[in-house]
Amino acid sequence: MSIVEHSISHALLYPQSIALLGVSDDPGKTGGRPLQFLRNSGYAGKIYPINPNRSQVQGEKAWPSLSALPEVPEHVFILSPTDTVVPAVKESAQLGVKLVTILAAGFSESGEEGVQREKELRDIAASTGIRILGPSSLGVVNPSNGLVLTANAAFAEPGVPKGKLFVASHSGSMIGALVSRGKARGVGFAGLVSVGSEVDLCVGDICLSTLDDPAIEGYVLFLESLRHGDKLKAFALEAARRGKPVIAYKLGRSSAAAEMAATHTGALAGEDDIADAFLKDLGMVRVEMLETLFEVLPLAQGVAKSGLRQKNIGVVATTGGGAAMVVDQLSMRGVTVQSLSDETQRKLKEAQIPGTAGRILDLTLAGTKYEVMKKALQIMLEAPEFDMVVAVVGSSARLHPELAVRPIMEFINADKPLAVMLVPDAPEALSTLTQAGIPCFRTPETCADAIAAVLARRELSESANAIVPDIGDAHALSEAQAYEVLDKLQVPHADYATFPLSADGATLPFDYPVVAKICSAHIPHKTEVGGVVLGIQDPAQLSQAFATLRSNLRQKAPNAMCGQVLIQPMLKGMTEVLVGYRIDPDAGPIIMLAAGGIWAEVMRDRSIRLAPVSVDTAREMIADVKMLKTVTGLRGKPNGDLEALAQAISNLSMLALKPELKVREAEVNPMLVLVEGHGVLAVDALVMQAR
Amino acid sequence: MSIVEHSISHALLYPQSIALLGVSDDPGKTGGRPLQFLRNSGYAGKIYPINPNRSQVQGEKAWPSLSALPEVPEHVFILSPTDTVVPAVKESAQLGVKLVTILAAGFSESGEEGVQREKELRDIAASTGIRILGPSSLGVVNPSNGLVLTANAAFAEPGVPKGKLFVASHSGSMIGALVSRGKARGVGFAGLVSVGSEVDLCVGDICLSTLDDPAIEGYVLFLESLRHGDKLKAFALEAARRGKPVIAYKLGRSSAAAEMAATHTGALAGEDDIADAFLKDLGMVRVEMLETLFEVLPLAQGVAKSGLRQKNIGVVATTGGGAAMVVDQLSMRGVTVQSLSDETQRKLKEAQIPGTAGRILDLTLAGTKYEVMKKALQIMLEAPEFDMVVAVVGSSARLHPELAVRPIMEFINADKPLAVMLVPDAPEALSTLTQAGIPCFRTPETCADAIAAVLARRELSESANAIVPDIGDAHALSEAQAYEVLDKLQVPHADYATFPLSADGATLPFDYPVVAKICSAHIPHKTEVGGVVLGIQDPAQLSQAFATLRSNLRQKAPNAMCGQVLIQPMLKGMTEVLVGYRIDPDAGPIIMLAAGGIWAEVMRDRSIRLAPVSVDTAREMIADVKMLKTVTGLRGKPNGDLEALAQAISNLSMLALKPELKVREAEVNPMLVLVEGHGVLAVDALVMQAR
Repeated sequence: MSIVEHSISHALLYPQSIALLGVSDDPGKTGGRPLQFLRNSGYAGKIYPINPNRSQVQGEKAWPSLSALPEVPEHVFILSPTDTVVPAVKESAQLGVKLVTILAAGFSESGEEGVQREKELRDIAASTGIRILGPSSLGVVNPSNGLVLTANAAFAEPGVPKGKLFVASHSGSMIGALVSRGKARGVGFAGLVSVGSEVDLCVGDICLSTLDDPAIEGYVLFLESLRHGDKLKAFALEAARRGKPVIAYKLGRSSAAAEMAATHTGALAGEDDIADAFLKDLGMVRVEMLETLFEVLPLAQGVAKSGLRQKNIGVVATTGGGAAMVVDQLSMRGVTVQSLSDETQRKLKEAQIPGTAGRILDLTLAGTKYEVMKKALQIMLEAPEFDMVVAVVGSSARLHPELAVRPIMEFINADKPLAVMLVPDAPEALSTLTQAGIPCFRTPETCADAIAAVLARRELSESANAIVPDIGDAHALSEAQAYEVLDKLQVPHADYATFPLSADGATLPFDYPVVAKICSAHIPHKTEVGGVVLGIQDPAQLSQAFATLRSNLRQKAPNAMCGQVLIQPMLKGMTEVLVGYRIDPDAGPIIMLAAGGIWAEVMRDRSIRLAPVSVDTAREMIADVKMLKTVTGLRGKPNGDLEALAQAISNLSMLALKPELKVREAEVNPMLVLVEGHGVLAVDALVMQAR
Repeated sequence: MSIVEHSISHALLYPQSIALLGVSDDPGKTGGRPLQFLRNSGYAGKIYPINPNRSQVQGEKAWPSLSALPEVPEHVFILSPTDTVVPAVKESAQLGVKLVTILAAGFSESGEEGVQREKELRDIAASTGIRILGPSSLGVVNPSNGLVLTANAAFAEPGVPKGKLFVASHSGSMIGALVSRGKARGVGFAGLVSVGSEVDLCVGDICLSTLDDPAIEGYVLFLESLRHGDKLKAFALEAARRGKPVIAYKLGRSSAAAEMAATHTGALAGEDDIADAFLKDLGMVRVEMLETLFEVLPLAQGVAKSGLRQKNIGVVATTGGGAAMVVDQLSMRGVTVQSLSDETQRKLKEAQIPGTAGRILDLTLAGTKYEVMKKALQIMLEAPEFDMVVAVVGSSARLHPELAVRPIMEFINADKPLAVMLVPDAPEALSTLTQAGIPCFRTPETCADAIAAVLARRELSESANAIVPDIGDAHALSEAQAYEVLDKLQVPHADYATFPLSADGATLPFDYPVVAKICSAHIPHKTEVGGVVLGIQDPAQLSQAFATLRSNLRQKAPNAMCGQVLIQPMLKGMTEVLVGYRIDPDAGPIIMLAAGGIWAEVMRDRSIRLAPVSVDTAREMIADVKMLKTVTGLRGKPNGDLEALAQAISNLSMLALKPELKVREAEVNPMLVLVEGHGVLAVDALVMQAR
């Protein structure tokens, strides 16, 4: 059985019949718009206006109720006020309606009563199988069949452009803005959905249901936060399998905006870098700029087709100044432009291509000649040092658009992606290239944003197979128990020995100096109760340490049950890191590597991936953490054992494939990184496990 | 006497007569274009085509030579090949021509012969007073009088829009691209100059000469690198005095692009953060995005007018999603959106303004009503917690542009800057607002870029008065001599004592442990010759240290004359920084604060300003260096003495006001930061001083 539920997408985008419940007689009012818009756009299905108070609305027959209709409508848009919504959904479900869309707000974002209403909606959906879009949904638009089923005022303007992009947006107002901007950029849509507050259908469900729609070639997600990650993941994996790019614009990169999104929708906004790892690890293309949304699809398709693995960009230009802007913007995003190889320069010379070749190939004015540009592009696209080529076209793109784009059009089926950036305002060239499906960009910034985004998109990670166990309450393990979990995962930790708290001393299996720590599942934060004694040099000090721990515990945690003391050698690494695994409520299992100590507080110097990760991916994470460059042999110091760290990260992340361990969270902090060849050692660990 | 040389700007932008030397008969050729363009654009001055080989060009009488003309032309555009340029300039000078523009390339960027040619040009200019634009200049355009004196093919298109912006560009091809983009955005120009390789007239000269032109309200500088900083500084200071904003787009933020700019022009590209400090300290508005160039002027004017000192932004919106995009982009650039105060919320409530108020004021659809938006803007603009207000307007900006902009137009003369971001594509509203001079933005990114740029622009710093002494060769001082310079500046350093290298020991004025260092003007890098012995605990070890230093010096620097050993107490601070002053060849005197130790290598964690700086500015520099957050009382540690550091930075920077010290460079590395109240101490210093 396919995981794609066609019935949802049918009722959503191709309904045969629609009921407009509570439609207003005034087409200027929010509740009156959908009827007017549907009529104006020539929607050919059956429309049933329902208004118990009027026999006519907007000049049409109005029905008194859903049950009075001559047929069961496929899709009901509930336009009536909040307090009428639950009965309306109930009635729809009883009649066998497949999908209702709810315009009203006033659910979980607005207090206890709203939470109760939302629960009722969920119960109805669960018990009857009816699907719900919203609440707070401004509706659905499908330009291919005139389905302008929306209360968004922007759709008063006729002529939503048809095209390849399907949009699912948390923000209802944005679907109108996106249409206007797409129109201006010559980009059209295969559907737009305002998903609202996702009581039932969420972004993932909706997009997944449309995956068999041949009109849809790519997805644009306008996200206020990461919600319903499991559904989004299922969609992203299936979209990747089908080669349909998923482009994401996510708000909340800053805490200020995250806070706004939270207020706006009632959802809790997670941390952006977790969402970022989620999007990229699931192969989505996360762009940073609004207008990149309309420009990146052909490039994302080209990259998916070419199976691009490396990130070496070649640039050919007719204007050095224009090219420098693109190179600059790329570099600022961490994408390096590759210089031309000697061999490529030789070939260009042989072909008598004029211009200067170095970091980029600058053809200057000669590049405006068809033969020169064509030959230059051919040599650049064939050069093994490049995985993608960017052509930066100057004034000819505006003055002679046909001439300027012709050599580029020759490479429409090139094996490598070819992107075009137009330096002047050049609407004709832009339109021709866009219509031909050639990646082309209006500004150096969207060009660089798009390239950086398609390169940052990761191949579907190992995390595709992660299992999210159903963990209810979890409790902390003692440090010794935590090390037992690490042992199962082959994550190295320091030697230790445990002794009763009541002991006066101990014979140790390792040398002094040592550290003595309270070891209890009830005291996860040992230092807060004075539960750690450092730098114990000899048996006498050890005996004193036992006494100190007993005394501190009596004072600061008299109720905590603690029977054990854990003793470890005092160790010092070249540096310290934090390695943490957890099941994030939105993103699922994640693994994090962070700079240790005061670094972590000062800089947000950390790298996150969906778990599990391979050793290769763990190496990428290590490269992400800037602080770890301090142990890469700088200033004559030895290297840290980063290979062992990579192995340990990967091993810890395997918790995502071991649901039987029932671990919700496992944090090694600190993990000591020793000199190369000496490995890494966890010297403290906290594990949260289901009972 | 005014520092503005009107004769340059007159010959440049308003010449009465022009000679086109070497003009081609073919208007399609580069050398034929200026004649065609001037004719097409209706330039009313006298044009003298000069071509020794033809009696006619493009249907006009051609003159055989400059000296054959009936008058001395005000401006000569030399279109002939490189090898004819020097004689042509010489002849022009002899005739009394005020300004020549040189199209040809082939000067200092192309080998020794070119360097020689360039020198000849400089000599002619110096000895005769003729001014030279170029070489490699594509010419000059002034849309107000039809002066399309350019070989840039883009100007084949008629109708360069008239307006307020004057453009000076290192890249000649970009002036065409800028015109087309300005046209598309409804922004016009008061002049455009392709400055080429600046043999004589540079960006600063050219712009300075135009400052009295009432048509010019703002400057756009398209810079490939920072060159002729002294002239740019003179211009920037004078422009600031007159309230004419200077907007800069500078390439080379990345090393790749910097390298390209260098190849392109033959100039050496400096480090971008020095250029950045230069631009911002001189009050220029440095934007990061190409299209911000066309949008930022009214905002920069408003900020200059309001004398904005704080950076608190208030946001009012008709669409929460749209506003979140702006907030997000602002936050990513370090600009925080200020929440509404309780008092402001109370006033809004009192005025019965609907919507939600928190981080921003979201009026939702109600904001499309004139009265609501007007009242809301009024309350926001009057609220003391905001220094600037951004209105984010949704679909109404497209559907009802007149209605949408009307309430905003009411505040055209508000005391605080009011900026507008339009969420949909809304060309009419954009055009109306642009024409009215109201800051308005087409994308959330340019909106945030512009706001961040006008806020990053600094008030004219103390550096306006810096003096750049004419320092020829400079030589290193010994460490002891360097401390004497620090003493003059009141920059604290560790105690020290010097002894002859031949000594066997010494009686110290401070306690052990100490460090012994070779002290010689000839050995600036002591560690490289084994010239430092650390951790000397007692007189016996000190005696041994003298022997070690003698032995190391004999082996590794036998020719270095070294008669002294400098002894200092071994000291340890909470952290170490580098504080450096130098006269940068482009930017002039600068002061730098950088993280010390391995941080400096791993992160480019540093802050640069033009010198001198006040203690206040030094505090800002300290806030810029992330590593210094580690000594701000985190984790219960004491604070570092950052006040003393600020004082020391400011004191060192005063070198820029003490030309009599003839210091070219003074680097304290490391400077120890002690616990609050205990100050800072230089424990090594290197000073380069003119003989």
